[in-house]
Amino acid sequence: MSDQHQNDNDNSIMKKPMTRRDVLRLAGTGGLGLLLGGGAIGSLFKAENNRKTKTAQADATGSRVPFYGQHQAGITTPPQNFICFAAFDVTASGSKALQKLFKTWTAAAAAMAEGKQVGEESSNLNLPPVDTGESVGLNPSQLTITFGAGPSLFDDRFGLASKRPPSFKDLPAFNGEQLEPQWCGGDIGVQVCADDMQVAFHAVRNLARIARGTAVLRWVQEGFQRTAQADPTGGTPRNLLGFKDGTANPAVSSAQDMNKIVWAQSGDGASWMAGGSYMAVRRIRMRIEIWDRSSLKDQEDTFGRYRASGAPLGSKNEFDPVDLNQKDEKGNLMIPADSHVALARGDGSIQMLRRSYSYSGGIDSKTGQLDAGLLFISYQRDLFKQFVSLQQKLSKSDRLNEYILHVGSAAFACFPGASKGGYIGDTLF
Amino acid sequence: MSDQHQNDNDNSIMKKPMTRRDVLRLAGTGGLGLLLGGGAIGSLFKAENNRKTKTAQADATGSRVPFYGQHQAGITTPPQNFICFAAFDVTASGSKALQKLFKTWTAAAAAMAEGKQVGEESSNLNLPPVDTGESVGLNPSQLTITFGAGPSLFDDRFGLASKRPPSFKDLPAFNGEQLEPQWCGGDIGVQVCADDMQVAFHAVRNLARIARGTAVLRWVQEGFQRTAQADPTGGTPRNLLGFKDGTANPAVSSAQDMNKIVWAQSGDGASWMAGGSYMAVRRIRMRIEIWDRSSLKDQEDTFGRYRASGAPLGSKNEFDPVDLNQKDEKGNLMIPADSHVALARGDGSIQMLRRSYSYSGGIDSKTGQLDAGLLFISYQRDLFKQFVSLQQKLSKSDRLNEYILHVGSAAFACFPGASKGGYIGDTLF
Repeated sequence: MSDQHQNDNDNSIMKKPMTRRDVLRLAGTGGLGLLLGGGAIGSLFKAENNRKTKTAQADATGSRVPFYGQHQAGITTPPQNFICFAAFDVTASGSKALQKLFKTWTAAAAAMAEGKQVGEESSNLNLPPVDTGESVGLNPSQLTITFGAGPSLFDDRFGLASKRPPSFKDLPAFNGEQLEPQWCGGDIGVQVCADDMQVAFHAVRNLARIARGTAVLRWVQEGFQRTAQADPTGGTPRNLLGFKDGTANPAVSSAQDMNKIVWAQSGDGASWMAGGSYMAVRRIRMRIEIWDRSSLKDQEDTFGRYRASGAPLGSKNEFDPVDLNQKDEKGNLMIPADSHVALARGDGSIQMLRRSYSYSGGIDSKTGQLDAGLLFISYQRDLFKQFVSLQQKLSKSDRLNEYILHVGSAAFACFPGASKGGYIGDTLF
Repeated sequence: MSDQHQNDNDNSIMKKPMTRRDVLRLAGTGGLGLLLGGGAIGSLFKAENNRKTKTAQADATGSRVPFYGQHQAGITTPPQNFICFAAFDVTASGSKALQKLFKTWTAAAAAMAEGKQVGEESSNLNLPPVDTGESVGLNPSQLTITFGAGPSLFDDRFGLASKRPPSFKDLPAFNGEQLEPQWCGGDIGVQVCADDMQVAFHAVRNLARIARGTAVLRWVQEGFQRTAQADPTGGTPRNLLGFKDGTANPAVSSAQDMNKIVWAQSGDGASWMAGGSYMAVRRIRMRIEIWDRSSLKDQEDTFGRYRASGAPLGSKNEFDPVDLNQKDEKGNLMIPADSHVALARGDGSIQMLRRSYSYSGGIDSKTGQLDAGLLFISYQRDLFKQFVSLQQKLSKSDRLNEYILHVGSAAFACFPGASKGGYIGDTLF
């Protein structure tokens, strides 16, 4: 099944009349805006349920997400089940080596997205295999590989200082965070997502192998959410605090919204980033044991939603509008003003596309407690106006802060997509 | 779909005439021997392909593996996609507290295997929720929870010293191992496996929560293999060295073989262990970067198999018999005598049931290299005659030792299964 689909490339889609299946397929990968332009798309989808779009897409494609396109895959692509996030530091100097790395990575990533190995194996048995082989026989599993440049890439090593987008720099310190250097920063960030963990791991490992001599791994974090098999309804997944997470995400089916919220525009100050997006990554440890000792009322007041349904407090259904003014019979706000949903929503003016995963990393050997939490990832058009501005507010007042701790942090300028013949990063160099 | 199957309990199966589907369903869970007795079963299955049995079972059951039975589930159950392994140390003293823990754990584990929460939620919002909630809405995902006692449980704390099976004690030191205390030992070991990582995590977390005041987590290791979705052929999965792993496993469909290889028997020296099994767990780190620099010939000579097909060197197909005497035209052995397959197979007299998972734990912050490898798990009737005796041989001569490092180690006496009304461990107390 997957072989058949691997032969069926992007170009052929462009030439053939589009079926409803094709539309569904492209919708999840950010390619739809390119074909149809802005507004007419929303009506094709239930905006509230990205996962449903995805299931349809998986059926239609044999689990392949096209690598090339106007935008990089893995941003508006409906979230896959697993992530393996890798941050790299560049050890070579000079722009040439860096360009070569991105060219080689692009070819390898495009091949892996098709379910192929990173290169042709030689018939010479005395050479190391070109590909490490653990994904042989596996289908592409919706693999997406999304590359971004960290603020440190714009120092004096590669002649890129003048290219740094004006609004892109290291994240400021936030109230209460306890960052650990081993989970922070990176010259390059690579978000690898797939519906199979072995496929995701394989991609990171082979990218690291290809980078040898040019870049080294700085940190790697695996993550998961519930699988579509475990939850065929495709509802919003729950985080490890037991609450639905992602309800309020903007609909990726609206190209207009995505252009406003997610994609950097040519007039934003760095023309090479047009069609790209700025990513914030935070490793947020959950204080699981403390949370588990708090009452259901405290938990629901903390999120501002019911645990069972995900509905805003005072409402019935998960996607009911959040009414921050509704009061109970005693005149108290139904949704506490310092609850997560009240603060994160605010007046609705700050939006971003969240694409987070749960992580579980055994136990913390110092405390004996579970080292588990959320690998928070958000994409936005402007890192400071969106993520930073919201996180400053949350870090000061969010009731949830009692139960979480930000221990890792990074930001990456994720390049626009590449077209065949080009490479990821080609607009920068 | 899953709700329907949750209402469809073990007893109803026993009473109804058995369909082929029912047979397939029980076969994977070790329940078939109980129903049919020994020999007639093998012909129903392709012995070589446990995964196929499993797929059939998943279709038939709506993803539920019965918790109660003659044997604990999770041993001869076809391997699920994910593991979350937890080792606990008991902090309470006295047999009463320990018994109470196993009783409560049994009820919780049986409920979770049915896709239910660990207990009924109270209507009092001012109490902490009974269940942590992150698996609400998910189906059981073939969840199995397998409990075992470590050698340390038989010291003087619980009055169990006289119950220690004569052949069950701490594993001896093996050549070349570099054990790290944070990955070793435990009074109690709990192997949690499921086709959904969130379901597996949920189980470990809730067991840890239930244990509060009686036992604490000592170490936790997550693991994965490729999903059935990524490989619908159900072939033998590949380990992170790119080779198929598990080809030579004995067929779980033969009750006769399982009684010989896996299940402790009443005459073995500890009658309370009859129907249980001894588990060895080794956290085996792979020296990924060194492996990836070695030639394909070296890699294949190391395993004694072809990487692409999994066939023994000199043969064509994965399940061809391993011929350790076959020579090439120059008179050299096709399968090197110090290859992994040659040593692990030996004269075929030592068998065990392996049930291992790959793990990926980010990077080793000291070396910057990937901390990935194999969470090796094997089940056997006699820990020393089987696992220890083979591992002593492997640790001295296996060519694979150049590329792996044992950093964690534990052994557990996994209790026989419990029947409804009983509890796991009830034969011991």
